Amino acid sequence: MIFASDNWTGASPQVAEALLVAAGGYAPAYGGDPLSADVAAAMSRLFEREVSVSFVGTGTAANALALAHVARPAGVIFCHSTAHIAADEAGAPEFLSGGGRLHGITGAKGKLTPEMLEAAIGLYPPEAVFHGQPASVSISQLTEAGTAYSADEVSAIAVVAKAAGLPLHMDGARFANAVVGLGVTPADITWRAGVDMLSFGGSKNGCFAAEAVIFFDPEKAKGFDFQRKRAGHVFSKSRFIAAQFAAYLARDHWLDLARHANDMARLLADGIEAAREARLALSPDGNEVFAFLSRDADQRLKSAGALYYPWPASGLGVGEAGEGEVLVRLVTSFRTAPNEIDQFVGLID
Amino acid sequence: MIFASDNWTGASPQVAEALLVAAGGYAPAYGGDPLSADVAAAMSRLFEREVSVSFVGTGTAANALALAHVARPAGVIFCHSTAHIAADEAGAPEFLSGGGRLHGITGAKGKLTPEMLEAAIGLYPPEAVFHGQPASVSISQLTEAGTAYSADEVSAIAVVAKAAGLPLHMDGARFANAVVGLGVTPADITWRAGVDMLSFGGSKNGCFAAEAVIFFDPEKAKGFDFQRKRAGHVFSKSRFIAAQFAAYLARDHWLDLARHANDMARLLADGIEAAREARLALSPDGNEVFAFLSRDADQRLKSAGALYYPWPASGLGVGEAGEGEVLVRLVTSFRTAPNEIDQFVGLID
Amino acid sequence: MIFASDNWTGASPQVAEALLVAAGGYAPAYGGDPLSADVAAAMSRLFEREVSVSFVGTGTAANALALAHVARPAGVIFCHSTAHIAADEAGAPEFLSGGGRLHGITGAKGKLTPEMLEAAIGLYPPEAVFHGQPASVSISQLTEAGTAYSADEVSAIAVVAKAAGLPLHMDGARFANAVVGLGVTPADITWRAGVDMLSFGGSKNGCFAAEAVIFFDPEKAKGFDFQRKRAGHVFSKSRFIAAQFAAYLARDHWLDLARHANDMARLLADGIEAAREARLALSPDGNEVFAFLSRDADQRLKSAGALYYPWPASGLGVGEAGEGEVLVRLVTSFRTAPNEIDQFVGLID
Amino acid sequence: MIFASDNWTGASPQVAEALLVAAGGYAPAYGGDPLSADVAAAMSRLFEREVSVSFVGTGTAANALALAHVARPAGVIFCHSTAHIAADEAGAPEFLSGGGRLHGITGAKGKLTPEMLEAAIGLYPPEAVFHGQPASVSISQLTEAGTAYSADEVSAIAVVAKAAGLPLHMDGARFANAVVGLGVTPADITWRAGVDMLSFGGSKNGCFAAEAVIFFDPEKAKGFDFQRKRAGHVFSKSRFIAAQFAAYLARDHWLDLARHANDMARLLADGIEAAREARLALSPDGNEVFAFLSRDADQRLKSAGALYYPWPASGLGVGEAGEGEVLVRLVTSFRTAPNEIDQFVGLID
Repeated sequence: MIFASDNWTGASPQVAEALLVAAGGYAPAYGGDPLSADVAAAMSRLFEREVSVSFVGTGTAANALALAHVARPAGVIFCHSTAHIAADEAGAPEFLSGGGRLHGITGAKGKLTPEMLEAAIGLYPPEAVFHGQPASVSISQLTEAGTAYSADEVSAIAVVAKAAGLPLHMDGARFANAVVGLGVTPADITWRAGVDMLSFGGSKNGCFAAEAVIFFDPEKAKGFDFQRKRAGHVFSKSRFIAAQFAAYLARDHWLDLARHANDMARLLADGIEAAREARLALSPDGNEVFAFLSRDADQRLKSAGALYYPWPASGLGVGEAGEGEVLVRLVTSFRTAPNEIDQFVGLID
Repeated sequence: MIFASDNWTGASPQVAEALLVAAGGYAPAYGGDPLSADVAAAMSRLFEREVSVSFVGTGTAANALALAHVARPAGVIFCHSTAHIAADEAGAPEFLSGGGRLHGITGAKGKLTPEMLEAAIGLYPPEAVFHGQPASVSISQLTEAGTAYSADEVSAIAVVAKAAGLPLHMDGARFANAVVGLGVTPADITWRAGVDMLSFGGSKNGCFAAEAVIFFDPEKAKGFDFQRKRAGHVFSKSRFIAAQFAAYLARDHWLDLARHANDMARLLADGIEAAREARLALSPDGNEVFAFLSRDADQRLKSAGALYYPWPASGLGVGEAGEGEVLVRLVTSFRTAPNEIDQFVGLID
Repeated sequence: MIFASDNWTGASPQVAEALLVAAGGYAPAYGGDPLSADVAAAMSRLFEREVSVSFVGTGTAANALALAHVARPAGVIFCHSTAHIAADEAGAPEFLSGGGRLHGITGAKGKLTPEMLEAAIGLYPPEAVFHGQPASVSISQLTEAGTAYSADEVSAIAVVAKAAGLPLHMDGARFANAVVGLGVTPADITWRAGVDMLSFGGSKNGCFAAEAVIFFDPEKAKGFDFQRKRAGHVFSKSRFIAAQFAAYLARDHWLDLARHANDMARLLADGIEAAREARLALSPDGNEVFAFLSRDADQRLKSAGALYYPWPASGLGVGEAGEGEVLVRLVTSFRTAPNEIDQFVGLID
Repeated sequence: MIFASDNWTGASPQVAEALLVAAGGYAPAYGGDPLSADVAAAMSRLFEREVSVSFVGTGTAANALALAHVARPAGVIFCHSTAHIAADEAGAPEFLSGGGRLHGITGAKGKLTPEMLEAAIGLYPPEAVFHGQPASVSISQLTEAGTAYSADEVSAIAVVAKAAGLPLHMDGARFANAVVGLGVTPADITWRAGVDMLSFGGSKNGCFAAEAVIFFDPEKAKGFDFQRKRAGHVFSKSRFIAAQFAAYLARDHWLDLARHANDMARLLADGIEAAREARLALSPDGNEVFAFLSRDADQRLKSAGALYYPWPASGLGVGEAGEGEVLVRLVTSFRTAPNEIDQFVGLID
């Protein structure tokens, strides 16, 4: 019953096997290897256009370096107040962007709305040097509330961003879960909806450590290698990130992994919905279930060894815990077994 | 005949196997796993004292973050002019240290001398705000010329650094090769000789991507996690770096790998020494052979498929190429086969 | 009727005269002149202890560099959400501190409370690398709501800051007005109450451009010259800042200037209090009057040439404007003439 | 006999008077005042085209912020190894540009040559991520050796910079002296010769503290206000910098001041040339005289109260001191009196 986070899992057997195979022999360093080229081609096929693919070590690096790449002096990055970049990256976006500022917006269900975004941008009129200047917009897919933006929602945000001349970044740490959950194509939910840069995460969904920044307009990636290099994110044996991604993308493996995780989340949500001692905070769009548990149930589950985190409701936009309740986050993964769900649900009345 | 760099190799079977094993099951993220604790203990045994061990993604990150950790405003980092941090890291030390400056010193055979270091530090008198203030000293072990500092040489440099109140950093991208080459203990060549921080590299010697910053005084590591995190170098599945290091350190595997590489370099150097068309630039202390090849031999080797890089003599302190000669760097690795050496040497007259 | 800001004024005749006198002859550059030493001595007398005095060009530089001096990696600066550093300095504290983050706290009347501060610090537990680490606390004296912290209020905040190991900075852009308004000594309201660093502003109260960072423990100022220099804030003809401060401090000129400004604010507040069409948002402690004007009165005043800014109530903690009202900020200065007040008040019913 | 530096002087009476006049009354803050507009117009007339004018506090800030404005990730700034930005600004260009690197080039007489520049740029091939990428070129006018680049010399450098896509910056801390010394128009020696940005210094030539960054293409200045603001260089009472510049530029006052300084330098150089105990290191183009003094003469002058600095020959390209000689720098100013020269020369045999 491990629902602490999807990064508690190891790697999928296919990914692990691919790495083992790649361990032999020689290959040019620093991305000059054939596997890296293969992954770039696979990503371009996946997104139905030529894209630029840059590997980095972590999701934090992917987010922060992408945002650094479009930074402006005194620049302001607009995001949800609970966004990973705002709450969980220890200032990496601020640091790597040379002192940028995050402007957090508190929207319901972990989402920005176009109206909120427009109002926030309006606080930084171009003629005033005092407040800083808008630099970019970042949304998370899945959001930190486990919800997914529909293609229409993304488009509406992109319209506001574009009108202000701002690039739109998507933090796709759980991009696979969002794509599966929404039933859309990767292209439809990204560049066709106006996304300029995507942090494409593999680590949470079956890779060891595989993250990439995708630029949908390869021209815009110019100079990004220097962003990566000066932050120590150009790997000499870059082909080992490539090997993971190659196996991850092959034959829709990444979607299969995410589908399983999402199915498990659905199962878990159904169980919670049916229980008296628990209620869903919101319906999951991916592999994260936010639920209010009675303190009794919470205690019982923990005693039985269930691992998960209580979660601050503040800013998430999922409602508040009632008397005697605690908000928790339950994350499923490609590895979650149905019997883990059964056991968990069985412990709640 | 691949002598381009030791980072063209894959991973050693033991390391690869360890990763495969670690791929199963669950483990706490962000370094809370048992393997990470095991590696910390193993490192402390290795260095014969309690040390602090922090994983990062690349050698560039290890170097730049260690130096950032001891940065000062307007701080100056003293190093050899050919040091990796000065020549090959695209300004990562400057960037991650918030605008530090590298003061390159050109010493013979890729090494700093205490006298040179003292003179360089003297250019930044404490009372003058104009030039900046000394912040740290960094030496490379192996150096970029493939030489190793003896324990006495390190000590002499440390004395100068200490007198100026400067921490001493060692870039140990090829630390294993140096330890084997010198026939010393890891403790003797580091903290006992006055080294404060070590970039302990595994990637060039049989790991996929395993780098760590070692603080010999764990107190001094305080706050270093924030340096790593804000640069995107805290890995969620940190245990996969741990798994590599665990296998790497177990039963002196890392030394065995380095010994093989060094032996191959010795073999290569002997072959070159015996040839008419080639001459050693200096005697190798580890797994890098710098040699002057006649242009004919160079052409013949390349035609036969040998891979290696011509190298700029400038600053390296290994002498200059004569008429019709070219300076080349030949790097061996744990994977280099004796017959690669034979074939190479056989092609030189 | 110019109440736009106290930085719309020129310089006091005494300050201007002092600069004229200093314009002759020669003096050592970069702070080695006798006037700079005089000012340092005068400040030490003023604060009843030896202090370190460092000149910079602007209040923004004073604040940001002081906070940069105590920065930590992934560091968080706690301040009121309306603080000048948070709202009006275009990210200078973030930039000059190498990517620090401001954590804004919304307290009533522009003030932090110890409870709020403690709760905010508690959001960054030392063991969690994700959120960043507390680095400093900054309060403004006067606040952005024109209020002043009493010595007891400052002490209570300092206790919380100290308990968390955080230095306490005071933005004293209107320090003179606060000292006069509170009727305290400079020592009592700063270091005796636990303040570690003070941005001592002269520009708003009769100087051309004279700002200084005061460290109450001179030991803590070590290295601060490098902070200033690398941000371009070490002035070659530093004696001209010294000349301003010398005249400013001589014979309590600075307090006389502030007293006049405060008296004018009191007069203005009294007039507003007596009017039907206007009401005070809060009682002024210094030279800033926040008032709600009826839209009619606002229109009439503007037509008559009165200059002042509407002010966002958001976060200021002064209550909200009612129907048909607008919140405005009215700033008096050493130059404000009583007849400007009379004219203004005469235009409100 | 004060030849220590031109920044030991005060302000010219006209500039001081202008400041006194501006001290009265009110004016909009932050550059919205009429004087600031007047100066912008005057600068545009001076340079015979519309230029963008941005005030900052110091020459270091002007240089570093201009270079920061055109920074690139892992960016390299090419300059003479003795340039003020490289030797005397405590890393401000590196810091404010977010970690840029200065590549120092050692050319004769303090100057870069096009050939040297081209070779240096060539060390950073676009396809290699390791070394960083060229970002800008900076030359000093006067140079640190007191020489001036002719318009043809500037043009030749600009051609190389342009070919590499690099903006050309000119550090004009002693721009007035160069213009007078060369007998050229400000336009001919800047934008007509290919200069993109100029640090226009007033502080060394009769102002208190007046420095500006001039962009010859106003479009390129977009966003520069944010560079200034986030470094604390947007002055609230900006009109006091404007007042200085207005008086400085009016009726060629700035050129008159510089002409006097240059004439004094010529006189000094002639006296040195005629002496047995001293020899010119090079012929001065402006107000700096570099000379080799016999140790006897040096001692005699110092005993008589002459103030000047010994100067490191290293890198300056002015030849080396002979046995028993010392290289010194003698700087004249608008305030230097002919009898100071006479006294100085009279003390040398």
